[in-house]
Amino acid sequence: MKSKRAVVLLSGGLDSTTTLAIAKNERYVPFALTFSYGQRHYLEVENARRIADAFAAERHLVIPIDLRVFGGSALTSELPVPRDRVGNEPGEIPTTYVPARNTIFLSYALAWAEVIEADHIFIGVNSVDYSGYPDCRPEYIAAYQTMARLATRAGVEGTSPVTIHAPLIDRSKAEIIRMGIDLDVDYSLTFSCYDPTEGGLACGRCDACLLRLAGFRQAGTVDPIPYQTSAKT
Amino acid sequence: MKSKRAVVLLSGGLDSTTTLAIAKNERYVPFALTFSYGQRHYLEVENARRIADAFAAERHLVIPIDLRVFGGSALTSELPVPRDRVGNEPGEIPTTYVPARNTIFLSYALAWAEVIEADHIFIGVNSVDYSGYPDCRPEYIAAYQTMARLATRAGVEGTSPVTIHAPLIDRSKAEIIRMGIDLDVDYSLTFSCYDPTEGGLACGRCDACLLRLAGFRQAGTVDPIPYQTSAKT
Repeated sequence: MKSKRAVVLLSGGLDSTTTLAIAKNERYVPFALTFSYGQRHYLEVENARRIADAFAAERHLVIPIDLRVFGGSALTSELPVPRDRVGNEPGEIPTTYVPARNTIFLSYALAWAEVIEADHIFIGVNSVDYSGYPDCRPEYIAAYQTMARLATRAGVEGTSPVTIHAPLIDRSKAEIIRMGIDLDVDYSLTFSCYDPTEGGLACGRCDACLLRLAGFRQAGTVDPIPYQTSAKT
Repeated sequence: MKSKRAVVLLSGGLDSTTTLAIAKNERYVPFALTFSYGQRHYLEVENARRIADAFAAERHLVIPIDLRVFGGSALTSELPVPRDRVGNEPGEIPTTYVPARNTIFLSYALAWAEVIEADHIFIGVNSVDYSGYPDCRPEYIAAYQTMARLATRAGVEGTSPVTIHAPLIDRSKAEIIRMGIDLDVDYSLTFSCYDPTEGGLACGRCDACLLRLAGFRQAGTVDPIPYQTSAKT
């Protein structure tokens, strides 16, 4: 029988949590993989643990990686996180883009998948509300899969090739939230903010909060997480 | 003027050191990148520092990454390192293969290259004496480059695409050593052993030592590093 093991990249945010719910619903056996990468939203790691528990992940690994050595992003350096933006200019990539982040994350997922003989990797990227990030596009995911199939034992031995699943890639934030609600995702466990308060409250003003809040509004429901009282919720 | 900055993956071994010498000789400005990844040959990191100095690398980053969380290789777990092997069976991948290692290494290199605006990455893989590793093959490197060009800002903004250079890919170990000698590489700084003694001596019996020793013999010269006296040098 073909393995239904799947490595699921789990940041603890809305998209990756919905992706885990989808993988579970499709009867994959999820192995959740979270990175602690010097990001400001370190709170996500704790949420990821609770989410992995809630979905009875077979295992949950949290890997510390330090992308601050490179800098180059508002999420890994002292650059300010942009607030109250109304969207990207055409072709604009915001300062919250972390260089090659998804490539690094998928590469660790590929390593783990090979060791546990999982033929599937799930990643919650989407190209609709994708904030202009190059590594959230369908053509990137397709090229990654082609490379991944050559990179590992299976590429030499001709055994099962790995498949990269990006089930949210063409979904709007509102569609994602509706899918998650249908799958009983508890969004109160998820956290998306790029720039939370010391006390762990979402700012309500960074790109991630604005996309999230607009998504809940468009889905006709209310975001269950608390925001700073000054946020434009 | 087009940037000549290049990220050079530098393990401190024979191949990566020769690759750094080639990059330098071709007038690239090398940014050397070394990983400390829980391998047994931790000595390589110290060597890498001395090698980066010797070639006046513009910068040298050493990044700790822990591939032991996955296991699955004699280099990252308690599996024994094979000794006195006479070669691979056709299609055999030895236990020293580290799952997705080059994919992870190249992904960090890609991140750094994007931050420092380097359009070039050098990696010292070769497919002749490649020990049967899937991620040392030309088709893998080509697929990685295709993916990398979609992964980063350049893939959206249409600016200079990254090029992955693997100048040793079709060279035998003896040819690599002759190239290095022509470029004044001091091979006494390099270290290749998978299974050194506590005191840091090369074992002379693992695949890496056997390939290295045969390479020096075929190049008509003598390996300048010391080996355990029991080694079959």
